[in-house]
Amino acid sequence: MQDTIVPSEDRPSDAASPLLYQKVAERITGLIDGSTFGPGDRLPSVRQLSRQMDVSLSTVMEAYRRLEDAGRIEARPQSGYYVTDRSIVRQPIFLDEPALSRPTPGPTPITTRELTLRVMRHHNNPSLIPLGAAIPNPALLPIDRLNRTLARVTRNAGPLGHIYDPPPGCEALRIQVARRLVVAGCSLTPAQIVTTSGSQEAITLCLRALCKPGDTVAIESPIYYGILQAIDLQGLRALEIPTHPQTGISLDALEYALDQNEVKACVVIPNYSNPIGSLMPDENKRRLVEMLAERGVPLIEDDIYGDLGYSSVRPKVAKAWDKTGNVLLCSSFSKTLSPGYRVGWVAPGRWQESVEWHKIVTNLATAIPTQLAVADFLAGGGYDHHIRHVRQAYARQTALMGHAVGHFFPAGTKVTRPAGGFVLWVELPPGYDALWLFEQALSMGISLAPGPMFSARQRYGNFVRLNTAFWSPRVEEALEKLGLLMRSPP
Amino acid sequence: MQDTIVPSEDRPSDAASPLLYQKVAERITGLIDGSTFGPGDRLPSVRQLSRQMDVSLSTVMEAYRRLEDAGRIEARPQSGYYVTDRSIVRQPIFLDEPALSRPTPGPTPITTRELTLRVMRHHNNPSLIPLGAAIPNPALLPIDRLNRTLARVTRNAGPLGHIYDPPPGCEALRIQVARRLVVAGCSLTPAQIVTTSGSQEAITLCLRALCKPGDTVAIESPIYYGILQAIDLQGLRALEIPTHPQTGISLDALEYALDQNEVKACVVIPNYSNPIGSLMPDENKRRLVEMLAERGVPLIEDDIYGDLGYSSVRPKVAKAWDKTGNVLLCSSFSKTLSPGYRVGWVAPGRWQESVEWHKIVTNLATAIPTQLAVADFLAGGGYDHHIRHVRQAYARQTALMGHAVGHFFPAGTKVTRPAGGFVLWVELPPGYDALWLFEQALSMGISLAPGPMFSARQRYGNFVRLNTAFWSPRVEEALEKLGLLMRSPP
Repeated sequence: MQDTIVPSEDRPSDAASPLLYQKVAERITGLIDGSTFGPGDRLPSVRQLSRQMDVSLSTVMEAYRRLEDAGRIEARPQSGYYVTDRSIVRQPIFLDEPALSRPTPGPTPITTRELTLRVMRHHNNPSLIPLGAAIPNPALLPIDRLNRTLARVTRNAGPLGHIYDPPPGCEALRIQVARRLVVAGCSLTPAQIVTTSGSQEAITLCLRALCKPGDTVAIESPIYYGILQAIDLQGLRALEIPTHPQTGISLDALEYALDQNEVKACVVIPNYSNPIGSLMPDENKRRLVEMLAERGVPLIEDDIYGDLGYSSVRPKVAKAWDKTGNVLLCSSFSKTLSPGYRVGWVAPGRWQESVEWHKIVTNLATAIPTQLAVADFLAGGGYDHHIRHVRQAYARQTALMGHAVGHFFPAGTKVTRPAGGFVLWVELPPGYDALWLFEQALSMGISLAPGPMFSARQRYGNFVRLNTAFWSPRVEEALEKLGLLMRSPP
Repeated sequence: MQDTIVPSEDRPSDAASPLLYQKVAERITGLIDGSTFGPGDRLPSVRQLSRQMDVSLSTVMEAYRRLEDAGRIEARPQSGYYVTDRSIVRQPIFLDEPALSRPTPGPTPITTRELTLRVMRHHNNPSLIPLGAAIPNPALLPIDRLNRTLARVTRNAGPLGHIYDPPPGCEALRIQVARRLVVAGCSLTPAQIVTTSGSQEAITLCLRALCKPGDTVAIESPIYYGILQAIDLQGLRALEIPTHPQTGISLDALEYALDQNEVKACVVIPNYSNPIGSLMPDENKRRLVEMLAERGVPLIEDDIYGDLGYSSVRPKVAKAWDKTGNVLLCSSFSKTLSPGYRVGWVAPGRWQESVEWHKIVTNLATAIPTQLAVADFLAGGGYDHHIRHVRQAYARQTALMGHAVGHFFPAGTKVTRPAGGFVLWVELPPGYDALWLFEQALSMGISLAPGPMFSARQRYGNFVRLNTAFWSPRVEEALEKLGLLMRSPP
């Protein structure tokens, strides 16, 4: 709210202009929709806002009155104005969580390409309420600071941003990544890290380095559909392993499956799994790493949500227990800083040479300027402060959205209680069809991700994944509409 | 030469300071090594240089005297100072060109992974004289202007640089690419173009969209080793087709090979092929496109050097004759603007959906800020001016380097006379071994690219590819040393 709406000389001194208070009201609405102020939050006082926006007191008061009439905010005597929080915040509803998943046993080709293509086609439609793709809320990215950083490093870099910079890639970035990994329990040198165009590329490169067409890859299930599609395009088969919403992949089930099948790699998201939100206990991570090392099955670990936990303690990565270079740790800054920068990385353990070679043959190198900007941002110390703010926002939004699901969705609905990230995995009562709901939601201007996308064999037919990053009254209304629809089918 | 070396208040008025003239001499040496002034070029007058560098006349005169003593420049009476051009410029030597290539017939797996890895390991060693990798000379990239452009678009873009921007990618860039393609004979809409992380990624995506492991791909031979490695990592086989240094791939041989083999795709570099420098005549391009369309074999066209012809007429791309969407046209700005930006594109014809899908699964999207910078640079009109300058420089340097090869290399050496790009393909007389020369050159501080890298079955054992982009007296000396070595083997 640093910009003024009108120059002060044009400002009416004590009378409210209709054009002006409308503008002020729109500005406040934008701050609520953009999650700067969430449901139940106290808004700035009339006096503060008048000063900040450089408009008269009566203009602000009139704007607040209009928003009150529209039900967006409410006045509380002796206290001020608050963003309307409706009933759900005052009455949190904790639904049961889904049980351990039960995917079909045995290796299988991926059957979800068409479905995923169809769903993703709507992921970037700006006219939809975005509950589908797991994209971060731009209002929670440090856009201005990153822009200033990129502009500055560009001016200072001279020719450095323009040369071919083959793998392992930008050294300044690798130094920062290695330093941050210490908190996650890893002692790696910058030379053991390879930068990539995002985490998806990191995972794709690892799969290519480890597997040949026809090979089988063990995966937690449900799992992010981008990983399934990478497995598919490489002609691999998936072995889906039962996974628990709190503790992640079932190690007993994995061990049993490894005894029965020849597995060439294992893909797991130990910290705040997408979509299930699980956080593997340290003991499980240790056992997972040891079990796979003993059997010579490399572990591809996706830690893309690792910095987005709701607790102040950063969880360890499974690679912290890796003694033999058997873990290939992948991550990126796409969820925390900037999806558009395409800056990710992989610590490929003993497959470093092969991963680097696949990177060279795929696209030679990663764009340099955005790597330099992220490295500078990390070195400057702004990242920790930023992450603290974002973690709190996602924690609050995810909780509220869980309550809203409890409030609006049909009886018998279950929902995860993730400890990090910004997605919810919702189990609809038996008989409800996620694909039907997906189509209905689209026709109502809402995108969501139907459960079958997250399974090689299209299980989870009564599950949907919801993005909580854009939580706002609009999203709340959308959930209410979906709930109404489900409770009174045609 | 816009920077001053010392502030004017510190400038000696008429006496030459040893520290100062040394600095001036170093600056001039830098300009010669960086090809701003080439062999035979007249240097600025003593008076001009004194003004530009803000030093005294005597300082410049002393610097010039020192450089004369070192043999780097020569004084010509009544005329001024010139960069020493030695004998080769005054006596151009035109060697014969290599004949039509004769690769081994029949499909084959790629056998050059180890060799290519070994050679590429030295490609980015800054202590070597860089005749190996086909990297552009940074002195011929518009680095300052691009840096300013990137800083400006970053400040102005707001959140635009940070969102997920899935294929087809940055619209501003696609519009500019579509406009520039008109000169190359193509009428494409921006929607028919997909942006990529460089040309290598474009070609990899096309191969993945078109072929399955075990399939056969017809290629011109010799061909850029990056394409061979992309074929290899996908488990494909190569069918090498004879290629002529002037007219490119032999259409008669290709037709004959297509009659004998089931081919799933064909990769050709019609304009200024790497390494052979050929430029296919329009009539050949037309026949190539028609021949492949009739047989249902898609053509992957690599046009990465298309803007770097030595003539003022921009050659057409083969896709100009494409009536059925059978041509997948790939290119990038890595040779002309910035290798480090990783900005390329593909016009994938009727395989657009598949290429976009492979792009999504490989890395979701291309980094946005560098795409915006290139789009802005192209829209601003600076590109044509820049390219004119660069084309002239590479034309001159490539000619001089060809003469130097004629001068220094053993009798019987042949060399291409490319019409564009910045590489020479050198055929050593029978009995000379390119791999031996590669190792010897390395030990002398020189990198080069041995011929067998450019063939699936390691043909061209007596060929080397030389990068001409860094032509300078240092490079000339390097060629002289290589020649001496070859003419007096141990």
